[in-house]
Amino acid sequence: MLKNKFTGTDHLYLQVADGLEKMIQEEILKIGDKLPSVRMLSEEYGISMGTAFQAYYHLEGKGLIEARPKSGYYVRFNHKRFPALPTAQKTDHHPALVSVNDMVAEVFHNMSSTDITNLSVGAPAIELLPAARLNKSVVHAFRHSPTSCIAYEDVQGNFELRKQVAKMAFNWGGKITANDVVITAGCMEALAMSLKTVTRPGDTVAIESPTFFGIFQVMETLGLKVIEIPTDAGTGISLEHLEKAIKKSTIKACVFVPNFNNPLGCLMPDDNKKALVELVTKYRLPLIEDDIYGDLYFGPHRPPTCKTYDTEGWVLHCASLSKSLAPGYRIGWVIPGRFIDEFKSIKMRHTISGTTLTQCAIAHYLGMGRFEYHLKKLRTALHAQHLRYIQGIVDHFPPDTRISRPQGGLVLWLELNKKVNAFQLYHEAMKYQVSIAPGRIFSVSDRYSNYLRLGFGKPWSDEVERGIRIIGNLVKKR
Amino acid sequence: MLKNKFTGTDHLYLQVADGLEKMIQEEILKIGDKLPSVRMLSEEYGISMGTAFQAYYHLEGKGLIEARPKSGYYVRFNHKRFPALPTAQKTDHHPALVSVNDMVAEVFHNMSSTDITNLSVGAPAIELLPAARLNKSVVHAFRHSPTSCIAYEDVQGNFELRKQVAKMAFNWGGKITANDVVITAGCMEALAMSLKTVTRPGDTVAIESPTFFGIFQVMETLGLKVIEIPTDAGTGISLEHLEKAIKKSTIKACVFVPNFNNPLGCLMPDDNKKALVELVTKYRLPLIEDDIYGDLYFGPHRPPTCKTYDTEGWVLHCASLSKSLAPGYRIGWVIPGRFIDEFKSIKMRHTISGTTLTQCAIAHYLGMGRFEYHLKKLRTALHAQHLRYIQGIVDHFPPDTRISRPQGGLVLWLELNKKVNAFQLYHEAMKYQVSIAPGRIFSVSDRYSNYLRLGFGKPWSDEVERGIRIIGNLVKKR
Repeated sequence: MLKNKFTGTDHLYLQVADGLEKMIQEEILKIGDKLPSVRMLSEEYGISMGTAFQAYYHLEGKGLIEARPKSGYYVRFNHKRFPALPTAQKTDHHPALVSVNDMVAEVFHNMSSTDITNLSVGAPAIELLPAARLNKSVVHAFRHSPTSCIAYEDVQGNFELRKQVAKMAFNWGGKITANDVVITAGCMEALAMSLKTVTRPGDTVAIESPTFFGIFQVMETLGLKVIEIPTDAGTGISLEHLEKAIKKSTIKACVFVPNFNNPLGCLMPDDNKKALVELVTKYRLPLIEDDIYGDLYFGPHRPPTCKTYDTEGWVLHCASLSKSLAPGYRIGWVIPGRFIDEFKSIKMRHTISGTTLTQCAIAHYLGMGRFEYHLKKLRTALHAQHLRYIQGIVDHFPPDTRISRPQGGLVLWLELNKKVNAFQLYHEAMKYQVSIAPGRIFSVSDRYSNYLRLGFGKPWSDEVERGIRIIGNLVKKR
Repeated sequence: MLKNKFTGTDHLYLQVADGLEKMIQEEILKIGDKLPSVRMLSEEYGISMGTAFQAYYHLEGKGLIEARPKSGYYVRFNHKRFPALPTAQKTDHHPALVSVNDMVAEVFHNMSSTDITNLSVGAPAIELLPAARLNKSVVHAFRHSPTSCIAYEDVQGNFELRKQVAKMAFNWGGKITANDVVITAGCMEALAMSLKTVTRPGDTVAIESPTFFGIFQVMETLGLKVIEIPTDAGTGISLEHLEKAIKKSTIKACVFVPNFNNPLGCLMPDDNKKALVELVTKYRLPLIEDDIYGDLYFGPHRPPTCKTYDTEGWVLHCASLSKSLAPGYRIGWVIPGRFIDEFKSIKMRHTISGTTLTQCAIAHYLGMGRFEYHLKKLRTALHAQHLRYIQGIVDHFPPDTRISRPQGGLVLWLELNKKVNAFQLYHEAMKYQVSIAPGRIFSVSDRYSNYLRLGFGKPWSDEVERGIRIIGNLVKKR
């Protein structure tokens, strides 16, 4: 039944696994079906037992099959069985003055509490990060620094670290040198200082809808107005709407997350990125690109960025290691293109320079060449977790729940029945020590009140399942 | 000749040393005079040899006497021999829009170059800081953190660190708890975020004249106007002028450095601080107090701050450990009084939280109780260095040079002959790899062009003496 021929240069086990994955997708193998034993698989495919085992191990890592003790492997998941996608919501084209969001303060004020099953954050669990290796790099950093890393760092950032960032940019087709990079305290400072660099108070800035609340909250403190551009869960912002908005009002900058937008998790197709860069170049419009999730892809390759297609320097590329390596180290960066001198001056005036020790430590860690290996493991874990979370939601939520199909990142976006108010749901769930992010906080307009965002950064556990069951039951009661 | 009687509770050696210091001041003992041997001193005062030695050691630490090998102790310095004080300059009362300062960029762009004798910065030499102990605290921090300090820190800052900051506030009469403190990335972020908290673009803010350029440079990026208040090298800002300015124009905030203003080094008398706080309270005017140099006093006691007298919460007290412990750790804080909630919200929106590792490490270091001991040693070194630098300037500069009499801090403020342009002097000195800070950069108006600031954070050495000789010779040539 399973016999196949192998061609190409891929690892044998991957070819076997891909064949099996296709059969699961096409429902030749259905959820609950028992798979052939490792011995049988090896015989049928004419491969070694080791290779057969590797193929199953790979599929298990992706969350598609599971091993049951003393019984064998079973199909656990099928992409086709995914629930429907959330619907996009229309946006107004009138700039709105951003208002303070008390909801955000309420939802995120007790983030560090350990009593709460926290599904409201979009961050990997600390146990998925290489703490021990980072500790070693910290010790290496102060031992090999003539000043033990207590002196001021270069304003632009540690030179070795900037070289490593430039090297990483190769992965998305960036042709960058250390001198093009400015190190910041995480991606949030990168975004805030980029906005300060290219706007003046009163200016209007285009953002996605829905979008991460941090983006329009910092705009509020800078006295900026925002205009929301409709964003498709599959392909990202509508370029047509963007150009219309540019023509109608005086947009001074854009802030978009083309790779795995938070909360949608959508991936803007490469052609759209290219067209977007052409559009902003035509209108001489600074594009602040938030690529914080770009390394957390579930597909076969690291997606390009808008910066990849930026020949004239209108893209300010912002990213960090807070979602993939060490949130508390506060290491982010900007590749500000034509705005680099003004950016550096603003950085100098606001914080002089970043933390020397964590910059040196990360430069050493990246120089050791272990980051790619760590990322691969992290991506596998997150991919499997996101599938398991979706399965959990399908198990415990009412059938009319719509779920995003993220192609990377750390969050799921759920559309609930229209009669559900997700902020009330947040309050009720908190009575059971479960925290979610209500959809309303992802827009400056009165939208998404029946949506919610769930982070899947925590490995699946009884605690997580309890959390999802509780939320699902609360939704069902409405 | 030296015989005296001792009373009081002070250490014996201090009483002996104080007696000798008075004799030097009154020129009973003149520069170059040989002092009695340790044995003779012990016999004349009826004290032990150890106590006699301690007295000389103390005076040597203060830079007043020096030991010459195989010869004995000699008088090296006399406060009376100080040159005249720089004169204050009148300020305009018209708010001026701050303009970008290319001079600052030029003077400070190669700060980290090791080929240059850098007298332009106001920072202690790294060799005066306890790097080895800080390294130990870093290792302790990650070993004892359940997340190895790689997770996000509390937005307000590490709780233990805030407790230590509250404890330190006792030294200046602050009645503060951990909940009143917000940790920032150094004092510069503390000032920038305080300004953002209490002003809107277009507002006018009162500053000292002269004042640290970083203060009005960050104001420029925030779209603020400044008004300069005349500042006396002895007593700080003129309260009379301030009240007049408040009545004339709509000042929305003040940013002052009451303890050891940079570049003047002056100490505002306690009564003036009290009166200043009463004034801002009366006019409901936020006072941003920069106390970054407060721990680096040369006098007998830690001076109080404006916050000491603040009963209504109008003072936002800013400080850091960048001038006394670890510049590269970027640890500062704000005690924002009545503005704490808005301050926290702005902090959250701009950088989420600070670096976890350095906050934990400093909390541990401070908790070990070694900071006071380190500060005492650092103050002694800086006191001696400032005297030695003044001596060097007297030796190598023309006699019409006026020099500030700092009561703490890290910098000297020099007034040169009117025909000297200190920015040209900077350029000429740089040909000899010596860097100074021209006075012009300490004002938003066209002032202080014949002034310069010299940092005395580097211990005296042949290299420093060469630098001061070169500058002195260049000044003499004009």
